[in-house]
Amino acid sequence: MELKELLKRRTIRKFAQKPLDKADILAMIEAARLASCASNRQRLRYIAVLSPEKVAAVLPHTFYAALVKPRRDPVPGETSPTAFIAVTATENPSPHLYADAGAAIQSIEFAAWERGIGCCWLGSFIPEKVAPVLGFPDPERIVYLIALGYPAEDPVSEDIPADGDAKYYLDGQDRLHVPKFTAETLLQWL
Amino acid sequence: MELKELLKRRTIRKFAQKPLDKADILAMIEAARLASCASNRQRLRYIAVLSPEKVAAVLPHTFYAALVKPRRDPVPGETSPTAFIAVTATENPSPHLYADAGAAIQSIEFAAWERGIGCCWLGSFIPEKVAPVLGFPDPERIVYLIALGYPAEDPVSEDIPADGDAKYYLDGQDRLHVPKFTAETLLQWL
Repeated sequence: MELKELLKRRTIRKFAQKPLDKADILAMIEAARLASCASNRQRLRYIAVLSPEKVAAVLPHTFYAALVKPRRDPVPGETSPTAFIAVTATENPSPHLYADAGAAIQSIEFAAWERGIGCCWLGSFIPEKVAPVLGFPDPERIVYLIALGYPAEDPVSEDIPADGDAKYYLDGQDRLHVPKFTAETLLQWL
Repeated sequence: MELKELLKRRTIRKFAQKPLDKADILAMIEAARLASCASNRQRLRYIAVLSPEKVAAVLPHTFYAALVKPRRDPVPGETSPTAFIAVTATENPSPHLYADAGAAIQSIEFAAWERGIGCCWLGSFIPEKVAPVLGFPDPERIVYLIALGYPAEDPVSEDIPADGDAKYYLDGQDRLHVPKFTAETLLQWL
């Protein structure tokens, strides 16, 4: 898929109940491993959660967009993610390691989108509850979770000026609108 | 360009002395503005430094890969970047904001690569020296710099196993080799 098409990717919070293929997850991690990272230290690791039991066990400890509650809270077995990827670190996270995670997750999202798969990057979860489900010993080293699945919604971005309201919202047809500042409003030339 | 080709992108530290086009920078910021960000808050702003005088004034306050010194230290007017993008924040950076910057910079790198332009994401610079050059009042809100230009090197990545040495190096032909752990070594299934 061309970059122009990849950039149409939006966060997905409503998923079809169709399982993901391991090959697709592997392609996402292939993208992540080639992402930029500080000094090429490659301090991120990934746990792909595909077993329905494990996915169901992670779900209650994850939290979704406050602005579109309750319509985008996942309903287990109806609209919930069919997989998670836990992005973990080999040491306690520093600012640069968070940046590494951002670069890797953006790459994962593109690789997912190319395969028709949607992602919701989650910063809000209870690491102490998720770690035992993952069998991962260090809750503080679970940097982010990504909820995954085939999209059952079709969000749209819309351009806004510098003084526009960036709050996303659901319209009467339950379609998510994501306001984005234009490039011109974000950029200064020297 | 297809994602498969975009993933061949590598960091560039040796640049041809050919100026960049504003349209290319704008395309990079277009990619950045559509990157994932926490709660769609869009707290990043960009300063594109293209004026040769300003680029030369930023350069002495930026630092490049320690592992390939001195051969990859930029020689002003010979191998040095022809532009910088400063990634700034509308508030003092938090971990999630660093992650936002990582996602945005990864998107910038892909948009650059598609246009034949190379990037070096810089976490090592002197904000207090760079801020006055940029006319930017808050050094602590310069999150990262990106050095840019047409590549005058052709780095190659190579796959390594879990116990491999991830240190990058220059070979006898001055070609940069970037060892990357395979996806299988980074990924665990549940």
